[in-house]
Amino acid sequence: MNALGKHLLLELKDCDKEVLNDLNFLRGALLAAARECGATVLGDSFHQFSPHGVSGVVIIAESHLFIHTWPEYGYAAADIFTCGDSVQPERAAQELTRKLGSKNHSIVEVRRGILDSC
Amino acid sequence: MNALGKHLLLELKDCDKEVLNDLNFLRGALLAAARECGATVLGDSFHQFSPHGVSGVVIIAESHLFIHTWPEYGYAAADIFTCGDSVQPERAAQELTRKLGSKNHSIVEVRRGILDSC
Repeated sequence: MNALGKHLLLELKDCDKEVLNDLNFLRGALLAAARECGATVLGDSFHQFSPHGVSGVVIIAESHLFIHTWPEYGYAAADIFTCGDSVQPERAAQELTRKLGSKNHSIVEVRRGILDSC
Repeated sequence: MNALGKHLLLELKDCDKEVLNDLNFLRGALLAAARECGATVLGDSFHQFSPHGVSGVVIIAESHLFIHTWPEYGYAAADIFTCGDSVQPERAAQELTRKLGSKNHSIVEVRRGILDSC
């Protein structure tokens, strides 16, 4: 079944709580994950929240990677949305899961844009 | 069942093809959708692709809105990810669907961060 996009939804639980509140670390991890899957990075934007938590996006030519963290719960939600056959989002998912030290994670893959004409 | 985040995945088919390739229109539509649901906008980033297609994100204090368009298919994938009870992401979804003129759309709601401790 052909689809225009592949969207991985990562539930990352029991992560290292310190890194979940470290904007620079998370930015580096998301950029590394983007490169790991073979994506072309176009830009990024990260925000630190008070008293804790970080949101960040890396925009890639093949779509995007996103992360939202809740350090107080050791939890992060991450999305890896890619299109085209030149990238391997599963590799980005592995890289991110490892770097955040998640001891309990799940991944749901959603095919986006399943069209009769594509 | 408590969850930290609510994530709406919008499949917007049979849209107005012209607006799907109009970066300024899409930026305005996504920002309006963010405001419509009561979110606090922190920033945005949009990219025009060649020969067609636009990717854009609006980062909100309550998480994010994202859109990727394929004008050649009249299709857009949009995400509305929110946390907290102060925003109504369904209103943003309605606003976006209407503005893009989608005649065939579906929405999947995913609860993110279902934790024993939250």
